[in-house]
Amino acid sequence: MSSNTGNRYVLGQNQYGKAENRVVKITRTGNDGSWHEIRDLNVSVALRGEYRDVHLTGDNANCLPTDTTKNTVFAFAKEHGIDSPEAFAIRLAKHFVHSQAPIHEAQIRVEEYAWDRIPVPTRRDQHSFVRSGQEVRTAQVTYGGNSGRLEVISGLKELTVLNSTNSEFHGFLKDKYTTLKEAHDRILATKVTGRWAHSVVASGDEDFDWDRSYKDVKRRLLEAFADTYSYSLQQTLNQMAERVLDGCPTVNEVRLNLPNKHHFLVDLDPFGLKNDNEVYYAADRMYGLIEGTVHRDGVSPVIATSDWVTG
Amino acid sequence: MSSNTGNRYVLGQNQYGKAENRVVKITRTGNDGSWHEIRDLNVSVALRGEYRDVHLTGDNANCLPTDTTKNTVFAFAKEHGIDSPEAFAIRLAKHFVHSQAPIHEAQIRVEEYAWDRIPVPTRRDQHSFVRSGQEVRTAQVTYGGNSGRLEVISGLKELTVLNSTNSEFHGFLKDKYTTLKEAHDRILATKVTGRWAHSVVASGDEDFDWDRSYKDVKRRLLEAFADTYSYSLQQTLNQMAERVLDGCPTVNEVRLNLPNKHHFLVDLDPFGLKNDNEVYYAADRMYGLIEGTVHRDGVSPVIATSDWVTG
Amino acid sequence: MSSNTGNRYVLGQNQYGKAENRVVKITRTGNDGSWHEIRDLNVSVALRGEYRDVHLTGDNANCLPTDTTKNTVFAFAKEHGIDSPEAFAIRLAKHFVHSQAPIHEAQIRVEEYAWDRIPVPTRRDQHSFVRSGQEVRTAQVTYGGNSGRLEVISGLKELTVLNSTNSEFHGFLKDKYTTLKEAHDRILATKVTGRWAHSVVASGDEDFDWDRSYKDVKRRLLEAFADTYSYSLQQTLNQMAERVLDGCPTVNEVRLNLPNKHHFLVDLDPFGLKNDNEVYYAADRMYGLIEGTVHRDGVSPVIATSDWVTG
Amino acid sequence: MSSNTGNRYVLGQNQYGKAENRVVKITRTGNDGSWHEIRDLNVSVALRGEYRDVHLTGDNANCLPTDTTKNTVFAFAKEHGIDSPEAFAIRLAKHFVHSQAPIHEAQIRVEEYAWDRIPVPTRRDQHSFVRSGQEVRTAQVTYGGNSGRLEVISGLKELTVLNSTNSEFHGFLKDKYTTLKEAHDRILATKVTGRWAHSVVASGDEDFDWDRSYKDVKRRLLEAFADTYSYSLQQTLNQMAERVLDGCPTVNEVRLNLPNKHHFLVDLDPFGLKNDNEVYYAADRMYGLIEGTVHRDGVSPVIATSDWVTG
Repeated sequence: MSSNTGNRYVLGQNQYGKAENRVVKITRTGNDGSWHEIRDLNVSVALRGEYRDVHLTGDNANCLPTDTTKNTVFAFAKEHGIDSPEAFAIRLAKHFVHSQAPIHEAQIRVEEYAWDRIPVPTRRDQHSFVRSGQEVRTAQVTYGGNSGRLEVISGLKELTVLNSTNSEFHGFLKDKYTTLKEAHDRILATKVTGRWAHSVVASGDEDFDWDRSYKDVKRRLLEAFADTYSYSLQQTLNQMAERVLDGCPTVNEVRLNLPNKHHFLVDLDPFGLKNDNEVYYAADRMYGLIEGTVHRDGVSPVIATSDWVTG
Repeated sequence: MSSNTGNRYVLGQNQYGKAENRVVKITRTGNDGSWHEIRDLNVSVALRGEYRDVHLTGDNANCLPTDTTKNTVFAFAKEHGIDSPEAFAIRLAKHFVHSQAPIHEAQIRVEEYAWDRIPVPTRRDQHSFVRSGQEVRTAQVTYGGNSGRLEVISGLKELTVLNSTNSEFHGFLKDKYTTLKEAHDRILATKVTGRWAHSVVASGDEDFDWDRSYKDVKRRLLEAFADTYSYSLQQTLNQMAERVLDGCPTVNEVRLNLPNKHHFLVDLDPFGLKNDNEVYYAADRMYGLIEGTVHRDGVSPVIATSDWVTG
Repeated sequence: MSSNTGNRYVLGQNQYGKAENRVVKITRTGNDGSWHEIRDLNVSVALRGEYRDVHLTGDNANCLPTDTTKNTVFAFAKEHGIDSPEAFAIRLAKHFVHSQAPIHEAQIRVEEYAWDRIPVPTRRDQHSFVRSGQEVRTAQVTYGGNSGRLEVISGLKELTVLNSTNSEFHGFLKDKYTTLKEAHDRILATKVTGRWAHSVVASGDEDFDWDRSYKDVKRRLLEAFADTYSYSLQQTLNQMAERVLDGCPTVNEVRLNLPNKHHFLVDLDPFGLKNDNEVYYAADRMYGLIEGTVHRDGVSPVIATSDWVTG
Repeated sequence: MSSNTGNRYVLGQNQYGKAENRVVKITRTGNDGSWHEIRDLNVSVALRGEYRDVHLTGDNANCLPTDTTKNTVFAFAKEHGIDSPEAFAIRLAKHFVHSQAPIHEAQIRVEEYAWDRIPVPTRRDQHSFVRSGQEVRTAQVTYGGNSGRLEVISGLKELTVLNSTNSEFHGFLKDKYTTLKEAHDRILATKVTGRWAHSVVASGDEDFDWDRSYKDVKRRLLEAFADTYSYSLQQTLNQMAERVLDGCPTVNEVRLNLPNKHHFLVDLDPFGLKNDNEVYYAADRMYGLIEGTVHRDGVSPVIATSDWVTG
C-alpha cells in the first residue's frame, strides 16, 4: 500500500472514510407492527487502496467521497437491516471492496449502545426504551487486502467491575524507588476494554449468531473476574481471557486492557477510628494499566496492541 | 451574607469547601461477613458564613480548611455508615453548622453510582459488582441560614429514554424563519435530568426511606414517559412531573431538564428506498432544550432554575 | 410565570429553545476581499412566556419551534453580522420578545472560541487560522420579563493560571478532623470561571465596545492573580474581582468560581532526595472550590450563584 | 515476548505500568531564584519482559510495582530535571531496562501542557503562568527489545486549524449512493493529531535540542496547512508531511490523523438571503477522517497505524 510521492518520499499506510455515523434502526414486528425493536449503532468507515494521486495531486478520480460512505451506511440499514454489529459491518466492508476497483480493503468499526425496555404494566405494545449504559459493545471488521482475508474482532468497553475482597498483592520486585506496602486484602476494580478475534469458521459463517456469541463472552469475562482469587491484576486478566477461550471455540484470541482503578484505604487513625477495609478513596489518576493478549497455539494474533513492539 | 469590603465594594454570596470526594463504603453482613454491600458516592461540601476576613485580608481564623471537610466525609462514612445519599448529606450538613460558629449554612451535594451484583451460579458469598451505568443518582442538602431550614432535593441525571412512536409535533407558531415540517409520527428521545424537593415531613423524618422514595420516583418518571402520547416534549415533561406528584405525597416540587435528542428520519429517496420511520440519524447538536418546574399549590419552589429569572 | 395545571398543580418557571447552535461567520475585507475575519460562536436560545397550554394539553399554538430559533441564529449572522457575542445576543433576545406576543422573555447564551492567525511570511492575503484555546469567552443576555429589563453578563471559562510561589495558607480554624499542615510557600493554581454584569449604561449603549471591555476584564483578572501575594484563595478571588471593579466603571458585579487545582509537593525523602518546592503532583480530585460575588454598593446582584441560598 | 500458558494457550504481547503520572517541575533561576520556569507533564510507563509467571500464577517476583514506576517518575524529575519530554522519557526508559533483568523493553509516553507567562508590567520576578491551550505536545519513547533499539516519536494533538477559502473538492468517484455536490470554494478545517519519528542520529544524540525540533515541526505543519491550495484533505495531509520532511533532516517519518471538521454552508434561501460563503454550521459528527504516513525512502515506518493492516 506504499507508493513513491513525487520521487521524493514514500506514501505509507493511509486510509479515509466517514467516521461516527450514528444510525438508529427501528423494526416493527407483531400482527399490527406495535412491537418495536431498536438497534443503535455508531459506524465508522475506513477505505484503503489506490490513493496515491489524491495525496500527491488532489486528483479525486479514485476517491469515493466520505459522504457516500455515510449514505451507504444509512441505506444499508434500510436495505438489509441490522442483525448484529458484526453482520452489518461485514456486509458494508464487502460492499466497498467489491463495488469499486480502487478500494482494496475496507475496515468498519462499530459501537453499539444497548437499550432495555421500560416495563409498563398495562401495556402490550412496546416502543419505549431506556439506555442500559452498562457497557458499549464494539466490532471491527476488516476485509480485503492482498490476502483477501475477512477479519472479525468483537469487543466491549466501559464495563466497570469491582471485587471488594479476594485480592492480594505482595512478593513483588523491589528497587530503591519502591515504597509500596504489601497488600493482603484489597479492593480490585477495573474498567474492562476487551477485544476478541474470531476464527474463519465463525467469520465466514453467514448464519453465525453474533449476538449470542457476544453474550457468552461477556458473561464469561464477568464470571471469571468474580471467581478469581487474585494475586495480581495480570493473573485476573489471564483468567478472564482463558475463560473465554475455554468456552468459545470460535474465539481464537483475546486482548484485555485493564486499568487498575485504585481504591485506597483511608487512614482514619488521626480521628481515633479503625478502618477495617470499610472506607476507601476512589482515585482517578495515576492508575496502573495492565494489557495483554492470550491466544490459541498456532494462531497469529491480529488484535492491535497499543503501539510499536519490537520483535 | 453580604459585607462591605474595605469601604469600597460589597462581598456578596460566597461559599467554599472540598468538591468531589469519592468515597466507597463496603459493609459486610451475614454470619461470616462474606455478604458485602457497596455504596459509591461523590460528595461535595460548600460552607457559607462569616467569611469576610478571609476574603479581605486573608485572615483564616474562621476558615475550616477544605481538607478538613474532606476528612470529615471519610470519617463519617466509617462512624455513621452511608444509609442513603440524602441521610449521609443531612448528617454532614448539620455537623458543619452545629460544630463551628462561623459556619451558618452548609450545602452538601452527592452523586451516587449504582452497582449490580455479578451473578455467579456456584457462589454463596457476594463481593463482586458491575457498575450499572443507567443513571447517576443525585442529592443536594442545604441546612442552616437565617431561616434554619433543612432543604432536601433528590434527583437523577443521564437517564436516556426513547419512544419510537406515539409522538407528534404540529400546529405550532410560525414566523418568517420557520421551515420545520409538521411531524405526525416521530421518535421522541431525551436524556433526563430531574430533581425533586421533599416536604419538611420527609426531610425531618429520621426514618424516612430515601432509597425507596428514589425508586418510586424513578419508576414513575419512566412509566409516564412511556405512557404519554406526546404532542410536545413540554407535555411529556408535565406528565412526568405530575405522575411523581400524584404518587409521592412527600414530594412538593419537580424540575425536569429535557434535551430533545433529535432523531432525524434519513432521506433515502435518492437511493430508490422508502424510509417508513425505520432509519434515523441520531444528532448531537443543536438540540432542543425543554426545562420546567411543576409544584404543589401553596409551595414556594426551591429548586434552582438554570439562571436569572425576572419576577 | 406560574399557572395552574388542570386544577391540580402549578406550572412554575419554564423555558425552551434550541441549544448549542454552532455558527461560524466569515467576513471578507480589503480591496479584493482576501482579508478574512472569523467569529466562531455556540449560541443557545431560551424562551419564556405563555406556555401553559403546550405543557398541559400539547397545544402548540403559542410555541415557536426550537428549529425556528435555530434558523434565526443563522439568518441573523448573515443579516446583521456578529460584532461581538454580547451585541449578537442582545439583537436576538430583543427580536424574539418583540416579534411574538407569547414570548415574554428571552435568554441567549453564547460561547465564543478564539482563533489566531497562522503567520505565513510570504503571504498578504489572510484566511488561515489556528484555535487559540486559552479560554472560552461567554455571554448571557436576558431581555424582557415583567420589568422589561436588559441584563448583560459577560464571562470566560477554562482560563487556567498558576503562581509557583507567593502563596501561603495557615492560621486556619481547626477541629478534630483537621490534619492539614500549615503551608508557607505553595503553588496556587486554578481554572477561572468568571462572570461580570454590566450596568444599564453599557447594556443600553448600542455603540458599547464589548470586545474591548472583554480584553480589559481578562487582563485585569490575570494581572490581579499574578500580583496578589496570597494568604488564601478567597483573598485572591476578592483581589481579582476588585481589580475589575476598580478599572471597569460599567461593570457592576463580578462572580468568580475558582477550583483549587492542588499541586502537592511530592515526598522524596524515601529516595534520599530533598524536594525544595520543585517537584509537584498535580491532582484532579478532590479539589477545593471557592466561589464568590463582589459588587458595587447599592447594586442588586443578578449573577446566579450555584444554587439555592437562604435569605 | 510470547510464552505458553499452562500448556493450553499462549500469552502474547503484554505490558504494564503506571499511567498518567502528572508531574509539574518548577526551576528557579536568576541571582535570587525569582525567575521561575515550569514544565507540566503527564507521564505513562509501560514495561515488557518476563511476565509469564505473574499472569499464570500471580507470582510477582519479576513484577516491579506500578507504584514504583510512579515514584521513579517523580524522583527523576528532581534528580535529573526535565529538559524536554523526549529527553526525560529516554532517561526513564533506559533506567527501567538497565536496572531490572526481567524488564526487556520500556515504553514511556508523555503529554506536555504549555504555559505562557502572565505579563505584569511592574514586575521583574516571574512566577505567574497561564495555560496556553493551543495544542498538547506528545512524545513516545521505546527502548530495548530484541533489537536493543531506541525509538523516539514526537507529536502533537488538538491543534485545530481552519482555512476559510482555497479549498475545493470535485472530480470524485461516484456510485449509486453518491449525492454530494461538487465544491469549488469551501472551508477546510481539521484538528491535527501528528506524530513524527526521529532518525537514530537524533535519538542517539544526548545534546539533541528536542524543544527546538518541536517548534520547527509545528511551524512547518501550520505553514503548509495555510499555504496549500487544497483539492482534497489528503493532498493537504501530504503537503504537511512533506514540508516537515523537507526541513527536518532528522525526521524520517510523519503520520497525520486529520478529521475533516465539516463546516456546512447554511441554506438561507428560505429567508430571502444569499449566503455567499459567509455563514456556516460547524458540525460535530459524522466527520471525514483522513489518515496517512509519509516517510523517507529506505526507512521502515514505526509509527502505529490505527489498526490491523494486511500486508
